[in-house]
Amino acid sequence: QGTRDHPPAHMALRDRLLAAVVACFKRHGAAAIDTPALELQETLMGKYGEDVKLIYKLQDQGGELLALRYDLTVPFARYLAMNKITNMKRYHVAKVYRRDNPATTRGRYREFYQCDFDIAGQFDPMIPDAECLKIVHEILSDLQLGDFLIKVNDRRILNGVFAICGIPESKFITACSTVDKLDKMPWEEVRSEMVGEKGLSPEAADRIGEYVQLHGGLDLIERLLQDPKLSQNKLAKEGLGDMKLLFEYLTLFGITGKISFDLSLARGLDYYTGVIFEAVLLQQENDHVEEAVSVGSVAGGGRYDGLVGMFDPKGRKVPCVGVSIGIERIFSILEQRVKASGEKVRTTETQVLVATPQKHFLAARLKLISELWDAGIKAEMLYKKDPKLLKQLQYCEDTGIPLAAIVGEQELTDGVVKLRDVATREEVRM
Amino acid sequence: QGTRDHPPAHMALRDRLLAAVVACFKRHGAAAIDTPALELQETLMGKYGEDVKLIYKLQDQGGELLALRYDLTVPFARYLAMNKITNMKRYHVAKVYRRDNPATTRGRYREFYQCDFDIAGQFDPMIPDAECLKIVHEILSDLQLGDFLIKVNDRRILNGVFAICGIPESKFITACSTVDKLDKMPWEEVRSEMVGEKGLSPEAADRIGEYVQLHGGLDLIERLLQDPKLSQNKLAKEGLGDMKLLFEYLTLFGITGKISFDLSLARGLDYYTGVIFEAVLLQQENDHVEEAVSVGSVAGGGRYDGLVGMFDPKGRKVPCVGVSIGIERIFSILEQRVKASGEKVRTTETQVLVATPQKHFLAARLKLISELWDAGIKAEMLYKKDPKLLKQLQYCEDTGIPLAAIVGEQELTDGVVKLRDVATREEVRM
Repeated sequence: QGTRDHPPAHMALRDRLLAAVVACFKRHGAAAIDTPALELQETLMGKYGEDVKLIYKLQDQGGELLALRYDLTVPFARYLAMNKITNMKRYHVAKVYRRDNPATTRGRYREFYQCDFDIAGQFDPMIPDAECLKIVHEILSDLQLGDFLIKVNDRRILNGVFAICGIPESKFITACSTVDKLDKMPWEEVRSEMVGEKGLSPEAADRIGEYVQLHGGLDLIERLLQDPKLSQNKLAKEGLGDMKLLFEYLTLFGITGKISFDLSLARGLDYYTGVIFEAVLLQQENDHVEEAVSVGSVAGGGRYDGLVGMFDPKGRKVPCVGVSIGIERIFSILEQRVKASGEKVRTTETQVLVATPQKHFLAARLKLISELWDAGIKAEMLYKKDPKLLKQLQYCEDTGIPLAAIVGEQELTDGVVKLRDVATREEVRM
Repeated sequence: QGTRDHPPAHMALRDRLLAAVVACFKRHGAAAIDTPALELQETLMGKYGEDVKLIYKLQDQGGELLALRYDLTVPFARYLAMNKITNMKRYHVAKVYRRDNPATTRGRYREFYQCDFDIAGQFDPMIPDAECLKIVHEILSDLQLGDFLIKVNDRRILNGVFAICGIPESKFITACSTVDKLDKMPWEEVRSEMVGEKGLSPEAADRIGEYVQLHGGLDLIERLLQDPKLSQNKLAKEGLGDMKLLFEYLTLFGITGKISFDLSLARGLDYYTGVIFEAVLLQQENDHVEEAVSVGSVAGGGRYDGLVGMFDPKGRKVPCVGVSIGIERIFSILEQRVKASGEKVRTTETQVLVATPQKHFLAARLKLISELWDAGIKAEMLYKKDPKLLKQLQYCEDTGIPLAAIVGEQELTDGVVKLRDVATREEVRM
C-alpha cells in the first residue's frame, strides 16, 4: 500500500528529471554521498516531532533495532558527526520511507525519492543560505513547471513574534505547526485551532494573526525592523537582520522576483533553527494539466544548526543549511503533461535492429550483432531463429528503433549489410 | 552492522562502475524498471530455500506484513505476473537486503546493490541465454578486472546426473547445494558431506564424483552426449543438446575462450530450471592487489522458467533468463586498485572557482558566479565575505578545480575577469 512499481515509461521520464536535478547540484560543486536505508531506531527518535509514528520499524530478529530512514537530513547529520566532518557540500538522491496516508494522485507515497543538497560548515551568514534558494530557482526554472513562488521565513522571527505576543516558549513548536496550516486554511480557522486545541488566549492569537498574515519583500523587512515591539526581541532582530542580508544576496542573483518573505511559513520539522523556505507552483487558470494535479510544495528546506550536535558525544555543533526537491510531486506533474501531450517516451536507446528477410540467417545475425555490440553500438535482434521481416520492422516502429541492419543471402554473398531507415524506408548498402 | 556509508570518493568510483554496467545493459536494448524495496512477506516465502532466514522483516505496525527485498529477481517475476507481461527485456539497479554474516573486506554486506539484466518471454532456445553470457563477457572485459572465467552448466544436466547415480528426486536440491561447494573444498570433503550429512550411499556419491569433476568445452558436451547412461536420461539429453547449441552461439560471439562447461557448478537458489552460470576472476600470481581481495564470483545467473508462474493466479508461466552483476565485489577490487595506484579520485566536477584577491568583493563574486551558473558552468566560491587569495587557490588544488575566475578592483574597473589556470598559473583577462 502506498508504494508502486515503476514501469519503463516512468523510469525514462524519472531518469530525465533526476538528471536535471543532479546536474544542478553538481553545477554548485556538491559531492555525492550515500547512506544505508536502514538506520538505528535511536538515531531517528526525537527528530521528527509527532511524525515519529510514521517511521517504519524492522522486526526484532536479534541484533540491532533498526528502522527505515524517514528523510536524508538526519542520516546526513549522523554521517557528519560519526566522521567528525565539519565542512561539506553534498547531495544525496535516495528513497525514504513514511507510514503516511498515501495520496497517490498527488504524488504522495510511502516510499519516495528525496533529492537533497546541503551545505555544512561555519561560514559567513546567509551566503550558503542564498545559494540554496538559487538552486531551487534554477531547478524549477530548468524544468519549466510554470510560474512558482519561493516563500522564505526565519524560525527566529517566528519565535520572536510568539514571544512578543505572550506565548510561553514551551508552546513555540505547537504554535509553529498551527501557523504552518495557513497555506491550507483561512486565518479564522487557524485562530480557532490556536485558541481551542492549543489553548492560547484569544488576545495572543489575534496579536499573532497581525504578524503571520504579512508577506512582502525588502520593504516588509525594513518595516518590521522598525516595529517597536519586534525590534526589541533579540532573536527576531537577528532573524530580520539576516533576512535583509539574504535579500541583498538574492538581488545580486537576480531572483527576488520569485521570492516572498512570508511570515506564515513555519514548516513542520523540529530541527530548523534559522532561515526556512518552501517553493510552491502557482495555479494557472488556463492550464488544465496543472489544475488536475494540485501538488502543493515542490521544494523546501532551511537551516538546522543544532542537528549534528545531537549525534556528537561532546555536542559539537556543525551549522547546516539545505534544500530538498520534491521530486515525486514534480514527477506527477510531468507525467500528466506527457500524457496530455500524447508524446511517446522511448524506454530504450537501441540504435539499430539486426534483421534478416530470409530463413536460416540466425548465425549471420548473431555475428553481426556481436560486432555492433563490441563497437559500442546499441543493437537488438528478435530472439527467433527465423522471424518474418515485417515483424522485425514492426518491432522497430513499436519501440522507436530508427535503423535496421539487414543481412540476407545477397548481402552475405556481396559482403555488405543493408542499412534501412525505418521511418523513410531509405536503404543503403555498406 | 554490515552496512556502510558511502563517502564522496566511494560514490565517484561507484558511479563510474554503475555507468559502465548500465551502458552495457542499454547497449543490449534493455529498459529500466524499479520496484519498491518493500515487498509483502508472502511474496518472498518459498523462493530462497534455506536463505529464507536471511530476509529482513518489518515490524507489524498494523496493515500489511512487509519485508525488504532479498534480490531483484523475485520482484521482477512478481511484476511480470501482476501486470500480465509475457515479454520484456529489462534492467534493474537497486539495493537488496540480507541478514547474512557480513564479510566486509570481501565486499559482502547486508545492504548492497544488485545490477540485473533479464529477458522474459517464449523464444527459440538459447538465443537469450547466449546474450546473457555475452553481457557478462562485455562487462568484465570493459572493466579490465584481469583474466576471468565464466562457468556454465544446466540444472537439467545436474538432475540427470543425480538420477542416473540413483539419487531420489527429493534429494536433488540438497545434493545440488553440496555439489556447489566444489569451488571451495576438495572432492573428498564434498563426498563425505554427501555421505555423512546428506545420507547418500558411498557408491552413489562416487558415481556423482565421476561426473561433477568434469569440465571442458564442446568436446566434453559431445562426449557426454555419447555417455551410455547419461544420454538415456531425458532431462540430461535435453540439457546437453541445449548446451551444444549455446556453445555454437557463443562461438559466433567469439567468446568461448572464457567459457567453461563445468559440471560442478550448481548455484544455490531453488528457482533455476535450465542453464546456470557464474563468472569468477582468475588469481594472477604477480598481482598483489587481486590477491589481497579474494572476491569469488563476480556475476551469476541462469534460467528460471517457473518463477513467474508462482505469482500468476492461473499459474501461467513466462520463461526467463537473466544475469546479476556482483557490483559490490567488483567495487572492492577497483577500490583497492585505486588505493594502490595513489590515483586521486575527484569527487566534484567543478570547473571554476570564483575568487577575489581583495576585501569587499563579495557582491562582485556573487554576481559573477550567478552568471556562470545560469550559463551552465560548474562553479564554486568560498562562503566567506573576505577570503584570502591563497586559501582560495589552495581550495582549487585540494579539490582539483582547474580554473579560478578572479575579480578585484582592477578587473571591476576594466570590466573584465582574470581567468587563471591553477596548475600552470597562466592567466588571461577576458
